Amino acid sequence: MPSQEHMKQALQTYVDAFNAADAAAVTSLYADDAVIEDPVGHPPMTGRAAIEEFYTNAIASGAKLTLDTPIRGSHGDRAAMAFTIDVPGMRIRAIDVMTFNSEGKITQMQAHWGPNDIET
Amino acid sequence: MPSQEHMKQALQTYVDAFNAADAAAVTSLYADDAVIEDPVGHPPMTGRAAIEEFYTNAIASGAKLTLDTPIRGSHGDRAAMAFTIDVPGMRIRAIDVMTFNSEGKITQMQAHWGPNDIET
Repeated sequence: MPSQEHMKQALQTYVDAFNAADAAAVTSLYADDAVIEDPVGHPPMTGRAAIEEFYTNAIASGAKLTLDTPIRGSHGDRAAMAFTIDVPGMRIRAIDVMTFNSEGKITQMQAHWGPNDIET
Repeated sequence: MPSQEHMKQALQTYVDAFNAADAAAVTSLYADDAVIEDPVGHPPMTGRAAIEEFYTNAIASGAKLTLDTPIRGSHGDRAAMAFTIDVPGMRIRAIDVMTFNSEGKITQMQAHWGPNDIET
């Protein structure tokens, strides 16, 4: 199981790499067969090619991420963060939960945000 | 599937009932066979008797909950919140994710907080 420090650093790197418009760096945090649900309730995306495409498009939208409160760990293989996504003309509030494998890569990302977590 | 408004109201009621020291009201938000993992990585607790005991003990510790940022919904059956637990002599930062059934009751609660999310 990865350390608490490793998981929290990975989530911080996720935010920083996203804001640096580096989709490849965000994608490199994931395992090859990782699954992302963004948002929870929509069909999941599987694998690094789909994941890199997802982040490339998200970054191209002009989105920037700001943590709302410190990243949380767990007593297991998961970490979570509450953050705000500012896209030109729109603000989305989300909570992401990431599950890690023993190599320290993210195997699952679940993004919690609903239709009324968006302000325009 | 419960509405976004129902799930967010349930999480707000959770915080308010906990702070009002009403373990029965917190427990009533759960389905009979609900499972809670608090924290994620520790053995889960199942069923309302175990859940009410858990909240009775937590409330007896003097803990009070404060939301850090607005409650999030999803496009599915889940809602999430980032909050701070102040216990005399200790502060814990957590992110809880709740899954709901079609009757609007919580079937699963997963609390994300780790050893270094505690300040003393």
